[in-house]
Formats: sequence, structure tokens, C-alpha cells
Amino acid sequence: MSSDLLRLSSLFVRTLREDPADAEVASHRLLVRAGYIRRAAPGIYTWLPLGLRVLAKVEAVVREEMTAAGAQEVHFPALLPREPYETTGRWTEYGPNLFRLTDRKDGDYLLAPTHEEMFTLLVKDLYSSYKDLPVTLFQIQTKYRDEARPRAGLIRGREFVMKDAYSFDTTDAGLDASYAAQRAAYQRIFDRLGLEYVVVAATSGAMGGSRSEEFLTPTPIGEDTFVRSPGGYAANVEAVVTPVPEAIDATDAPAAHVEETPGTPTIDSLVAFANAHHARDDRPWTAADTLKNVVLAVTHPDGRREIVVVGLPGDRGVDLKRAGAAFEPAEVEPATDADFAAHPELVKGYIGPRAFGPSVADERPQVDESVADNVTARQPVRYLLDPRVVSGTRWITGADEDGRHVFDLVAGRDFSADGAIEAAEVRAGDPAPDGSGPLELARGIEIGHIFQLGRKYAQALGLTVLDENGKQVVVTMGSYGIGVTRVLAALAEANHDDAGLAWPAHVAPAHVHVVATGKDAAVFEEAERISGELVARGVEVIYDDRPKVSPGVKFKDAELLGVPVLLVVGRGLADGVVELRARMGEAEQAPVADAVDRAVERVQQLLG
Amino acid sequence: MSSDLLRLSSLFVRTLREDPADAEVASHRLLVRAGYIRRAAPGIYTWLPLGLRVLAKVEAVVREEMTAAGAQEVHFPALLPREPYETTGRWTEYGPNLFRLTDRKDGDYLLAPTHEEMFTLLVKDLYSSYKDLPVTLFQIQTKYRDEARPRAGLIRGREFVMKDAYSFDTTDAGLDASYAAQRAAYQRIFDRLGLEYVVVAATSGAMGGSRSEEFLTPTPIGEDTFVRSPGGYAANVEAVVTPVPEAIDATDAPAAHVEETPGTPTIDSLVAFANAHHARDDRPWTAADTLKNVVLAVTHPDGRREIVVVGLPGDRGVDLKRAGAAFEPAEVEPATDADFAAHPELVKGYIGPRAFGPSVADERPQVDESVADNVTARQPVRYLLDPRVVSGTRWITGADEDGRHVFDLVAGRDFSADGAIEAAEVRAGDPAPDGSGPLELARGIEIGHIFQLGRKYAQALGLTVLDENGKQVVVTMGSYGIGVTRVLAALAEANHDDAGLAWPAHVAPAHVHVVATGKDAAVFEEAERISGELVARGVEVIYDDRPKVSPGVKFKDAELLGVPVLLVVGRGLADGVVELRARMGEAEQAPVADAVDRAVERVQQLLG
Repeated sequence: MSSDLLRLSSLFVRTLREDPADAEVASHRLLVRAGYIRRAAPGIYTWLPLGLRVLAKVEAVVREEMTAAGAQEVHFPALLPREPYETTGRWTEYGPNLFRLTDRKDGDYLLAPTHEEMFTLLVKDLYSSYKDLPVTLFQIQTKYRDEARPRAGLIRGREFVMKDAYSFDTTDAGLDASYAAQRAAYQRIFDRLGLEYVVVAATSGAMGGSRSEEFLTPTPIGEDTFVRSPGGYAANVEAVVTPVPEAIDATDAPAAHVEETPGTPTIDSLVAFANAHHARDDRPWTAADTLKNVVLAVTHPDGRREIVVVGLPGDRGVDLKRAGAAFEPAEVEPATDADFAAHPELVKGYIGPRAFGPSVADERPQVDESVADNVTARQPVRYLLDPRVVSGTRWITGADEDGRHVFDLVAGRDFSADGAIEAAEVRAGDPAPDGSGPLELARGIEIGHIFQLGRKYAQALGLTVLDENGKQVVVTMGSYGIGVTRVLAALAEANHDDAGLAWPAHVAPAHVHVVATGKDAAVFEEAERISGELVARGVEVIYDDRPKVSPGVKFKDAELLGVPVLLVVGRGLADGVVELRARMGEAEQAPVADAVDRAVERVQQLLG
Repeated sequence: MSSDLLRLSSLFVRTLREDPADAEVASHRLLVRAGYIRRAAPGIYTWLPLGLRVLAKVEAVVREEMTAAGAQEVHFPALLPREPYETTGRWTEYGPNLFRLTDRKDGDYLLAPTHEEMFTLLVKDLYSSYKDLPVTLFQIQTKYRDEARPRAGLIRGREFVMKDAYSFDTTDAGLDASYAAQRAAYQRIFDRLGLEYVVVAATSGAMGGSRSEEFLTPTPIGEDTFVRSPGGYAANVEAVVTPVPEAIDATDAPAAHVEETPGTPTIDSLVAFANAHHARDDRPWTAADTLKNVVLAVTHPDGRREIVVVGLPGDRGVDLKRAGAAFEPAEVEPATDADFAAHPELVKGYIGPRAFGPSVADERPQVDESVADNVTARQPVRYLLDPRVVSGTRWITGADEDGRHVFDLVAGRDFSADGAIEAAEVRAGDPAPDGSGPLELARGIEIGHIFQLGRKYAQALGLTVLDENGKQVVVTMGSYGIGVTRVLAALAEANHDDAGLAWPAHVAPAHVHVVATGKDAAVFEEAERISGELVARGVEVIYDDRPKVSPGVKFKDAELLGVPVLLVVGRGLADGVVELRARMGEAEQAPVADAVDRAVERVQQLLG
């Protein structure tokens, strides 16, 4: 029996009419209902035969394009000793997301979430000269991450398959070339898979490094928010850079003055009070005239808890995901009552920038991209400003006393900060940083991430090579990941309807789903013959040969399984015809004699 | 660039001239030296490109034959929750061999060493009727076992690849058929891989069950000892069944009598004393006339420590591996001083069977195959006898007092036991249990294990189906494993010489190794052309295009890497010839024009 003739009478699959209770999204619901996967534990899945076939096809596309791009395949263990991850600090930085265990000799081990350290050490083990480079290595391998909230089936799991690749170069130009090659390979991979994608600028997260892009597939159920402009700018919302306005000449600005503003702990109440008691001539005060100061608690990997105040225009909130990205690998949350109690200088509802030190004229906040590392703040509480708060801007803000605010407080004249931060929410209509027009927001699933790690890991782990002049130079690295199981889920998200899955031909578990209906032995004989001929011509076939199952159930199962071409042998056989149908298309009658040719033709068309 | 033209100038490989310090066996030594694998931690290896190619080919053979035998592929997680393993008792039984961990919510997890529970539960999840059966499922998957002594590279690792399969039947006859199909598939797999093997009767170990056979590949470095007879009997040494001699009529035997035997705590000293002071008329006493009583400590999975005494002819020792197999899943070790102190009735050096209860005439010890479960012993210390100690045999043995032995103690007349045990060492020349002649002993590596699990797991996990009469019946299972990474190591063991590996063509990382020697550009051009043509004809090529490497180093590397056909383009090119050579054969000159044809011919021959 060929493995490419899958008989439903014996295939290890059971379809379910009911959605699994824990399924939130279509891919999860349908992959379980169609018998592709089964849950083994939260975020941990078993692959049934049909699911495994699709997974193998996705892997094959990834492997082919990686190899075509010159990357060489290796395979690392999932179970790894602590030491290399200790050296780079990630043993600690990963926090509770890392599965840790000890072996029988009390040695510390982990289940690897990514393999930067191991790739770096392997190249160090084998290579020693610039002549050995560049090299790009990849693996397709099972990874582990102890997610706080595994969700959406395969989209955010705890055991999942990733393709991870790393490039090794001696020069920055070399890294750029390796990065470009991988970027192009990613485009080919997602093009071949027929998966719509957007390449967005991204932050590099816990990995460190500089240039960073994500491949997102747009879908309303995506966990990631991204922006794009009419002019082609696209970025993960965490990576959006705020255009910095011109500084304003505030020479003629009035001096700052403190006013009684009783009962105004919120921006709305403050604006209303200001309009009622300190009305402007030209226009009413708005939230944008106020400087909101938001108190955050930052937990560093070493456990240290730091209080940070973010100043931003009062018409915007802090986006905790953006704030989190700014402080990576530290974790960020709103300050608690205990935090406020420990900092009596922070008067809830009336916090102002003057609490954080003397005014410094002519000092404009600089965008500080590594605020997490900048722990030499001159204050016990760090004060960071939104980039919009440029020198010369005038604000109503807290006076650090209950029921009082200060008016006409001028940035750069009356106050300064320890740095800048990209933490304010991004809104539809905000200008793209490259001037390419107003941003729109959309949601997507991250299916790939490429970034320039630079020399961080090579430095930490001592990966150097001799250059042309016999000098040891630190190698520079790129990192390139594709969530293989997540891509499969994204394909299911993008290709389904209410009735079931609708796989693109390249990844479908089979090309043609042959259904024999009724009880007539001649029908089953003909369906058997057609199935056999199709397989002989290289077509992968699911053949529903179940003798006692009604046509209705067979069609429902076919729709659920999602094979692209359906071929029905039934009553029409008496008149010499069978039916051909695309998973989401119209039915066509075909003479029995042409059935195989027509099906092969359709499959070839779909496979391009 | 095709993935099947591997240029040594850029291939991610480095050969080593020195053996790795920890390598005990040839496969380990050579796989590391040739750059196929690298150690990541004890018993945990990284696969480099060449190793991964071989592994993929071994896996492909296994997958094809499994599928051809009707088995369907699935894939389970490696990280699994405790519950199913708790239900079957294996969470505890596996002891320190199991990698255990907790997740962020303090849930207990394990890294699966095998997946009986998961396969059983999956079939329970999907199937409910006898009509669904039989089904055989398999996976090729990464497994974990925290070995006390990982050794011999891939042969006994802690992270390794296994093919495990399970069959599910409603009837014993069905199980026999499924078992036979898998057994045949195993033979085809090892035949295709060109790996010599012996199928031996085996015990079923911690898995439970009845019929059990191992596939061993004979090699002096094997961890397993097996026996075979000229008549075709073969068994793992743990599984050897001792032929039980005929009972002896002891009607005329003299009564037992205790003698002073000062200073005779060992068999040798006892035999010498007996010959000196109680000489026989017909022949001297030998060790075989004495009954040795060996004290063992058995630690049960629940932690209970039980003392067991094994009585056996004094010319044989206890084989702890055989004793261990008899007590599975309990663990066995020699009794300690503390054990003796806790059992003053056991007089070291003078232990006799009379310590364990009254004599019972006409009771012959029965072979008790489940002594581990038989905890209803009538004594605090269980006494178990070697099957050779049949009724009527006469012995010199301990009198349970220091310096005293008893003579003419007759089995069945003067003493009995709680059961029989197969724990005595097996020796070359022992008779095969089936009368097929004297046994010879050999060593081998276990590469496969098939056995009939029976209903143990289905019972424990509630896997039942409705039979023809609408009655729930418990499913019966078979279990079939192949150590995939171990098979690769076994292939390396069986196919190497001092200079390096010598892969069979089916699993070699490439078919032809093209070497260009010297500095002549024409040589490299011709080698390039030949390599390209070979690849175009479907041949996988390693091409040593390194420009500044000496021919000596290139040949050494070629021998180390072990590709079956070597094609050298060098000085001969000026005379229009190249050299062709099998990895372990004679060199042959060939006209350049014929080089590709000749190489293809050789490869086709090797691939059969």
C-alpha cells in the first residue's frame, strides 16, 4: 500500500462535530475537529497522521529555501546544560518562561527556548579563521517556552517547532549581506506557502542586537499590533519611532505658576477645571496641553524593582507592551499602592516633573534606546519623557502637592529628564516617522523574525577568528527564526470557512479527496480504480471508502479536512459521470473516462 | 547550489586528527573526529550537517518500511504531564532514569523515555469499536533517559532518537499477526541498512508483557550478552531458561548430618575441607556438590527493601543482570553489611536453606516468572532456588551456624523454597533449553525490541472497545522500538577501519567523494565539471575543492569521512586519466571521459 493513498476506512483520524471547549480561534478549532492535532497538555500538542503530513510539507519548503540560500542544516539537543546560558545571562533573564530541571547528579539543565549560545559555541568549536566565514547554519527543531498563557492552539504553545538560523560574519557589511539573503529566503518561503505577510520594523527583544524585522501575517486574531502607512512604512507597534517635533522658542513664554486645582486627579477633571478657572483666549485647554506622569514599576532580571515615571502628553496613555519593549529584558507593570507608599514624593494625581530634580535649561531629552541599562540615574526615581515633549513646549502638570498644578511649565527651561522613552500608545492617524503619511493599525501573527544580533553573543562566549592581519576579531551574527508550527496554524487561519479547512495545495495533506457514495459496489470499484490511478500519477489521495457512512457525513468530513480537490463517485456513475469540485468552488460533471485527467490537471494548476 | 553537491571549502565540518578524550568505542571516536556529531553534554549530542544527512537516511528507511507494513505515523510531545505515567505506575518505577520537572504553575512534567501511555490514550480518544482495529501507530521522536552512566557516544545517550510503534488489537491472534508484521518489517529495515542482526528471545523488562524479542547486532563492544546454539536457539542472557533436570529418586540417600567445618566461609575452602575430612569414595567433592546461598537486596518501586536469598549450585555465581531482570521493575544489588545486621539468622558464609522454614517433602520448586509481584512469601526473607536444584539432589550447604555445614541435605526431602529464579550465570557450553546444543556466548548492541505488551496499559488506562456482541473488551497491545541514533552508531561500528568510517552506500552522507589534488587550475575545473555531472545524474557528491590543502590531508579526510566511492582528479589528468577507488578497495585508473559513467555505475551497484 502506498503511503499516498489514505483510506478513510483505516486512516487514524476521527472528525469531531463539536468545537473543543478551549478553542478560541479557527485554526485551533478546526485542526482539532478535523483530527490533525490533539491536546496533550496546555500548549502541548500531539500530531495525528494528517497534521504530520502538513507539518512535513511546511518543513520541506522551509528546508529547501534555507538550503537554496546557502544555509547548512544542523540539529541541536533540546536538553541543554545551564552553563552557556549562564554566561550570556539568559538563564536568569528568561525568568519563568524557561523550563529548568536538574539531572540525577543535580546538574542544572534547561529545555532550550532558542539556541543562540549553542550555535555560537559550535562555530567557535569548529572555526578559527576569517576564511571560514561567512557561514549560515539552521535547524528545524522542537523548542520549549513555559508561556504564562499558552493560547490559540499552535499559535502560542509551550512545545513547538521552530526553524532557527544564525549567520556568522567578520564584518558589518558581511552581516548585512547574510541578513539580506535570509530576508529574501523568507519572502520565497512565505510566497511558496501562499501566506500573506507584511515585513515590519521590530525591536529585537531579549535577544539584543540592532536591525530587526518581523514577518507578520495579517489576521484579526493576531496577538501583535502593527502599523503601516500609505507610503510603505510598516512596523511592529513596539518598534514605532515617534517623529520628534522641532524645538519651540519659548523666550516669551510666561513664567511657570502654581495654581490651586482642587479635586483634579485625572486629566479630564484637570482640563475641565482649567477651562472653568483659567480659560485661554485663543481656544479651550485640551488634554494635549497637559503633561501626564505615569508611574511604572520595572523588575530587572536580577530581581531589583525600580520606579520609573514616564511623562507624556495627557491625551495619550502608556502602552505597556511598548514600555515593556523599551525596558527589555526587564519586566514592566503599573506601580502598586506599595510602590507609591515607598515614594511619598510621588503625589498620586498631582505628579510633576519638578519632583525629579533641578530645572536644566537648554537640555533636550535624547532618545535613549537602552534605558534598561542606564541605571546611573541621578534620582532614585528615573524620569523619562515622551519624544513629543521637546524643548520649549508648555504644559499644565502636577505641582507635586495634593490639589495643585503648575501652569506654563516649559520643557528645557523649567524641567528636564533622565532620558526619553517610546512608551506612549500609537494611534491610527499618527504620522509615520519617515514622513510617508498617517499610520493605520492592524493585527497580525508573527511568523518570522530576522535580526542582526551583532557581536553580543560572540563577545560573551569568546567567538573570535583571525582576520587577514592575524588579529583576533569578534564575529558578528544574525538570527533568523520561523515558527514552523505557528506557520501551519496561520495557514489554517488564512484558509478556512465555517465548514472546515481549505489547504493550499502545496501543504494539503493530500491533493484529491475521492468520495464514494451509496452502496453500489460498482461505485466503490470505480472510486478505487480512480484513486489508484491518481496515486500512480503522483497525486496524493484521501479515499473515503467507508462502506456504511452516509454521503452527508462524507461531504461534511471532506469539507472539514480541507483537501483542495474533491472527486465524487456516486449515482452519476450510472450515467457515466463523476463530480469534480474545488474545496471552495463550483461542482463540475466529468465523464468517468476523463476523471483522472481532469483531477490531475486541477492539481497541477493548483501546484503551479 | 544543489544541496547534494557538498563543497569541502564551505561545508560546515572540521575533521580532528586526535581522538576525543571520552571516546571508548570506534563509532563514537570516528563520528566525532569526522565531524558528524559533537558532544553538548554527557550523553547529549549535536548533529552536524554530515551526521544529520546519515540520520535522515536511516530514518527514511525506517519510515518507509513502517509505512509499508501498514503502520501510520504520528508524533507525540517529549514534554508530558505526570498524570498518565502516574496511572500506570511508571512515574515512580522509572526512578532516577526519568527527567522530571515542574512548570511555572508547579505542575509535574517529565521528558518521555517511551510513550506507551500516550499511544494508549490517543487510541482511546479516537477509537471505540472493534471495527476500528487493528491499528499500528508509530513515531520517530526524540526521547530522554537520565542514564546513570551515559557511554559509548550515541550507543547509550540521554537524548536520543527512537522509532517507537504500538499495535492495537482486540484478540490475541490479532496481536500475534501485528507482531509478526512488525517483526518482518524489522528484518527488512536491518537488511536494507546492511546491518547484521540476531533475533534473540528477551525478557520484557519494565514494560511488562509476554512475548519479547530483541534485535541485536553482534559486536565485541556491545553492552548485551546473548547466547546462541548450533541448532538456532538465541536469547538475551537475561532470557535464557535453564533446562530443568529430571528429579532424582533419593529414597536411599543417607540422612542429613551437620559437620564441624571451621574456617570454610567460601566454596573453595569448603570443598577443600570436605575432601580432606569427609572424602568420598567414588570421586572428589567439587563446587558443584555444594549449594551456595547468595543474599540479595531488592528495592521495590515503592521504596521497600526486601532481602532475598538465592540458592544455586556452588560452581556458579549469580548474574546480577539476570537477577535484575527477574525482579523488574525492582532493582537488585548484593546485600550490604547493614542488611546482614538486620537479619542475624543469615550467618555469612554458612547460610543454608533450613533457615527458611520447615522441610517440605515432595514439593518441587516451580519457576515463578513474577517473583517481583509475589510478596506473599511465608518468610520475612524469601528463598528462591536455581532450577537445577531439583527434588532429590543432595548438597553440602551451610548449617546456619558459624563453622558448620550440613551434608547430604536433599532437596524436596530436607528443604524447599518460596519459588524458583533464573539468576545463575549462563556459561558457554550450557545446554540450550530447546535441546539444540551447547550455547555459545557473544556480545551485541540492542538495535530493536519487539514485544507483546498485552493488556497491561489498556487495562490501566481504560482502553476498551465494543466487540461484535456489544461488549466492552480490553484492547491488547504490542510495542516495537528501534533506537535510530543507536542504529547509526552500530552502522559506524560495523563499517570502519583504523583510518575512518566506511558507510554502506544507502546511508552514506554522499555517494562519491571527489578529490582535486595539486594546484593546477585545469584539475579543479575538471573536478568541478565531474562533480556537477554526477549531481545532475542524481549522485550525491562531496567535492574537496579546498585550494591549499595537501593531497595527503585530503585523502586522510576522505578516509575519515567514509564516503563509499572516491574519485581523484590529479596529476593523471595530464594523461587523460582519473582514479576511482572504493573506500576499502583497490584503485582503478579510468579515462576522464568515462569518469562519470564509471562512478555512476559503481554507485548503482552499491545501492543495489
